[in-house]
Amino acid sequence: MSVKVAVAGASGYAGGELLRLLTAHPGVEIGALTAGGNAGTALGAHHPHLVPLAGRILVETTAEQLAGHDVVFLALPHGQSAGLAEQLGEDVTVIDCGADFRLTEAETWVEFYGGEHAGSWPYGLPELPGQRDKLRGSHRVAVPGCYPTVSTLALLPAVQRGLVDPTQLVVVAVSGTSGAGKAPKAHLLGAEVMGSASAYGVGGVHRHTPEIEQNLTPYAAGPVSVSFTPVLVPMSRGILATCSAPVAEGTDLATLRQAYEEAYANEPFIHLLPEGQWPQTQATLGANTVQLQVTIDQRIGRVVVVAAMDNLTKGTAGAAVQCMNLALGLEETVALPLVGVAP
Amino acid sequence: MSVKVAVAGASGYAGGELLRLLTAHPGVEIGALTAGGNAGTALGAHHPHLVPLAGRILVETTAEQLAGHDVVFLALPHGQSAGLAEQLGEDVTVIDCGADFRLTEAETWVEFYGGEHAGSWPYGLPELPGQRDKLRGSHRVAVPGCYPTVSTLALLPAVQRGLVDPTQLVVVAVSGTSGAGKAPKAHLLGAEVMGSASAYGVGGVHRHTPEIEQNLTPYAAGPVSVSFTPVLVPMSRGILATCSAPVAEGTDLATLRQAYEEAYANEPFIHLLPEGQWPQTQATLGANTVQLQVTIDQRIGRVVVVAAMDNLTKGTAGAAVQCMNLALGLEETVALPLVGVAP
Amino acid sequence: MSVKVAVAGASGYAGGELLRLLTAHPGVEIGALTAGGNAGTALGAHHPHLVPLAGRILVETTAEQLAGHDVVFLALPHGQSAGLAEQLGEDVTVIDCGADFRLTEAETWVEFYGGEHAGSWPYGLPELPGQRDKLRGSHRVAVPGCYPTVSTLALLPAVQRGLVDPTQLVVVAVSGTSGAGKAPKAHLLGAEVMGSASAYGVGGVHRHTPEIEQNLTPYAAGPVSVSFTPVLVPMSRGILATCSAPVAEGTDLATLRQAYEEAYANEPFIHLLPEGQWPQTQATLGANTVQLQVTIDQRIGRVVVVAAMDNLTKGTAGAAVQCMNLALGLEETVALPLVGVAP
Amino acid sequence: MSVKVAVAGASGYAGGELLRLLTAHPGVEIGALTAGGNAGTALGAHHPHLVPLAGRILVETTAEQLAGHDVVFLALPHGQSAGLAEQLGEDVTVIDCGADFRLTEAETWVEFYGGEHAGSWPYGLPELPGQRDKLRGSHRVAVPGCYPTVSTLALLPAVQRGLVDPTQLVVVAVSGTSGAGKAPKAHLLGAEVMGSASAYGVGGVHRHTPEIEQNLTPYAAGPVSVSFTPVLVPMSRGILATCSAPVAEGTDLATLRQAYEEAYANEPFIHLLPEGQWPQTQATLGANTVQLQVTIDQRIGRVVVVAAMDNLTKGTAGAAVQCMNLALGLEETVALPLVGVAP
Repeated sequence: MSVKVAVAGASGYAGGELLRLLTAHPGVEIGALTAGGNAGTALGAHHPHLVPLAGRILVETTAEQLAGHDVVFLALPHGQSAGLAEQLGEDVTVIDCGADFRLTEAETWVEFYGGEHAGSWPYGLPELPGQRDKLRGSHRVAVPGCYPTVSTLALLPAVQRGLVDPTQLVVVAVSGTSGAGKAPKAHLLGAEVMGSASAYGVGGVHRHTPEIEQNLTPYAAGPVSVSFTPVLVPMSRGILATCSAPVAEGTDLATLRQAYEEAYANEPFIHLLPEGQWPQTQATLGANTVQLQVTIDQRIGRVVVVAAMDNLTKGTAGAAVQCMNLALGLEETVALPLVGVAP
Repeated sequence: MSVKVAVAGASGYAGGELLRLLTAHPGVEIGALTAGGNAGTALGAHHPHLVPLAGRILVETTAEQLAGHDVVFLALPHGQSAGLAEQLGEDVTVIDCGADFRLTEAETWVEFYGGEHAGSWPYGLPELPGQRDKLRGSHRVAVPGCYPTVSTLALLPAVQRGLVDPTQLVVVAVSGTSGAGKAPKAHLLGAEVMGSASAYGVGGVHRHTPEIEQNLTPYAAGPVSVSFTPVLVPMSRGILATCSAPVAEGTDLATLRQAYEEAYANEPFIHLLPEGQWPQTQATLGANTVQLQVTIDQRIGRVVVVAAMDNLTKGTAGAAVQCMNLALGLEETVALPLVGVAP
Repeated sequence: MSVKVAVAGASGYAGGELLRLLTAHPGVEIGALTAGGNAGTALGAHHPHLVPLAGRILVETTAEQLAGHDVVFLALPHGQSAGLAEQLGEDVTVIDCGADFRLTEAETWVEFYGGEHAGSWPYGLPELPGQRDKLRGSHRVAVPGCYPTVSTLALLPAVQRGLVDPTQLVVVAVSGTSGAGKAPKAHLLGAEVMGSASAYGVGGVHRHTPEIEQNLTPYAAGPVSVSFTPVLVPMSRGILATCSAPVAEGTDLATLRQAYEEAYANEPFIHLLPEGQWPQTQATLGANTVQLQVTIDQRIGRVVVVAAMDNLTKGTAGAAVQCMNLALGLEETVALPLVGVAP
Repeated sequence: MSVKVAVAGASGYAGGELLRLLTAHPGVEIGALTAGGNAGTALGAHHPHLVPLAGRILVETTAEQLAGHDVVFLALPHGQSAGLAEQLGEDVTVIDCGADFRLTEAETWVEFYGGEHAGSWPYGLPELPGQRDKLRGSHRVAVPGCYPTVSTLALLPAVQRGLVDPTQLVVVAVSGTSGAGKAPKAHLLGAEVMGSASAYGVGGVHRHTPEIEQNLTPYAAGPVSVSFTPVLVPMSRGILATCSAPVAEGTDLATLRQAYEEAYANEPFIHLLPEGQWPQTQATLGANTVQLQVTIDQRIGRVVVVAAMDNLTKGTAGAAVQCMNLALGLEETVALPLVGVAP
């Protein structure tokens, strides 16, 4: 028996990645595919890699078109999910890949996104302790941002066990350009990004900072502060996050490794690499995995954690499917690749 | 009931891609993984994307290590397959990704590769008319070169129906650098290939020329001649072949399109794109597909066919698995992705 | 004594490259920099590499702003030059990087560009026999398209000496994406072009075809026909053109090489590489050079010429400065790099 | 009157970049070009972009070949400079692009490089306060490492004025792959690096850490400690360093900006960008410049400085030429581009 799913925003990158994964999902029937300006055109014109769905015609993103589905994925620009979600029945499983329902504090929302806070939904990071249970059977899920996912997973075991000072967390994350979306902007043109690395959104504080802090705070002994800097590099997909923090007194490398081994021993998608092997994003391309390595720089006394992830898979669409599996009571790992596409 | 397979040359690019596909194959148990200089190391050190096999230790490439398997894939440097294959039993299904058994004419072999001609095996391009039947149940398969696969498939329908003059075929194929293998060479360094397109192997005639001619000749009204030029461009995977030939008198675009539609109507992996849409390699990345478009340049009177393909998937490892499926009497399409990974 | 130059369209790629070259030109004073939508902003916001001009404010592209300069470069979208040029005095040297004045035949113009034919100006390819003299002192210059420049230079010596059949010229040219300009379009986004090669503009005939034919025809024994296919590859700059044609009877490689050596012996920017060395675009990056290699594929009887060039330098802005030097009676090579930036 | 210069290690990336700059230097005559394994081959086979020198034959790297020059640049693998330098006369100006003479402390040298400490030469970073005078007339110069150059310049004004806590400096620097040299290694192959970001050399401490600390310590109020992580990204050239440190109490953004403005007001190559504009490596490609931006993340209380630089130009060969100019009493900026090549 199949579950009928719709994807709103099917012509964008998150929508395309959702469909790539969903076409391989045995328990799913793909229903309405909606779009904004691209409504009326064939999916294959936007995503020629989605061969089995290439002839599908995109329809307008409206509550009417999305009605009659068991699951609705929202892969829309930030701010567009809330209004639409209201019109979808409470019995529909709605999984939002946007930012609208990620932050719990209304005040923080207003500071970083502006406008009215729409509320918060169960947060789609099953690897947070206790979170998996909250997602099982839930009819609403807020999929995390890609930067917060990788940063949280990289820092959580160290923060949770008190192995680092959580008030001086520093994250520098290099990212491929698909994370910035498919809307044409001059600074995202191929000629601009190829052969160049650039910082952006550094002035003030990045929107993802409060989300990382929100994720880590419940597991920390005290207040959590993160300095987060994203760097755009010439690749389509992938995030490599270099995270560091002052090491707590008495913590040695063995203790640190053990914390990560234990934290992720039963996590199907989170992998601590063997000692001496450092993460590369290519190994996670198209997979729902995060690859981690940890060390301590004794000279300065900082823990350094490096994490690689595909921003579109575990960072967005893979997480969304993982949450759908949990929400529907399916096996959590169905249709989620462990194996990346490399080289 | 599982088939036990070994991969010789598992630390190279073709070996890695074979394993990426085989880990998703329900009818296969992965046995020995062999290597040359990398024997004794873990597979994960070379292919960190192959998560479920990362801890496997590579063993020496010898007939002993390969014994006891139902299927042996050879992903070795050109010239190393023949000696090894001799030592494998006739009841073992041996699928060679190298060039050793591709050419039928001993004289041509000697001209282009030198040394002794080892013979020829059933040619692993099931899309050639009649070829599928020769591969069913075969215990030996020679997987085609990547350039010949895409060039042959791009030109075959036009040649077979006499819509072009087969004596003036021109193919210019741009390729990612994984096709040149993983042995470190200065001209393949990242700093050399990024930001640069280069011709290579143009002086004299490329080794793939006789293979393309051999493929097309049986279906042509007369002699077949190809001018083939490969161009290296800054991407890891993918071939885009631009093929042209003088149009036969009286051929119009409708006839040409019909020839391609009919030729590939029942082929699961070969897709003629809708009119107006041109191929891009990204749409085939990691998939076993070929995407085609055709036109006639009336001004000069030439048919132009453009074809996109992943050199490691349909161009090598995907073709090998497709041939294994046929050889073993399995469903031909098992474990072969139709959907690429984009962007 | 300095010549005062203005650049119309300074925030685009051609404009930026003009300014990169002009800042190193000892005989030039840089005057007005104009733009369309970007008027009112600082040049440095668009071209942070142009350090000495970063604080300059862009003004509106109008005849008033361009008045009072000795030389005006037009680096505008196709179709915008003609109207503006009319308003500039006949004593001003106007160098148009757009297509408006390239084609001599009104009928061909209408077929390929539509609208009214504005006329034709002296064609800015000094390497055409006799052309240099026409450019000396000229007050109007039409800078060639980048594809026609490299294709013409690659084929001219063979065509002129009758070493090939000019009715079956085939050009496949891979190009970086800066050639498509800086206006944001979805298919030019970094995530779309990185890791992908794509054909475009193949249906029907590319606009550059008639320009190549127009260039070669005066030097050919008979009619000239070109099949031209552009391929977009993941790099910012550079064109690698693979050109071939049926070899004329009796032509051997020595004769062919001699033709190219003699044709370009005195050309400062056109270089035939030593035998056995094939062109790569990286070697011409930022330089005003074209690197060539030739061979004969005896098997099929075709001459193959491969040429590398930077589309923004010799392909556009470098050619424009070269023409300015000629027009003003300066040394032709001033401010034009021979040395590329590699790797 | 010309100065005669030799380049040892001319076929590598640093050697090639030195020659690119030196061909444009009006006061220089290029003499011997030496190599190791590539001796006997033409320079153009390795650096086809160096058109005017393409026919030059590389000779063996020996003291004999280097004799008779006024200036000798050493662009050799680490550890090879010391032995050679000993054999060059004291009146010869020797500029070493390797690491041999960078570190002042023998103990630190042994810890990070092993073997015997060869000593230390005047450090070729003229932008360090007082350093310019030490380089004028010097016959020996140790060119800094590329990472230390950009990290030092990014942090110096804040450290020198006491605006940050120098014991918790964190640098994450993304780099193109030319910094790793031209010796073929599997992990530097194009297919490995394109589409991937990877951490390396994180375990233990990177060799560049003590060099950064050595540079900053004389200007700091107390001990200096740096956590340094390099990240390899898919581009040929360029470093983007994200540097942060706890802000000193009472420091506001205006004070911070003023410190940078004043520190670099008279530096021809170091540029603080206008507020709101963040560095990108492309803007410095091929130029001898560093572009900087600074901010304070008040939420966590850290100063963040981002700096872009070309690792081969200001990071190596440009710095070497700048030091040669100083050593010879020439204008410091001769032959050093301010303008980058973009896009």
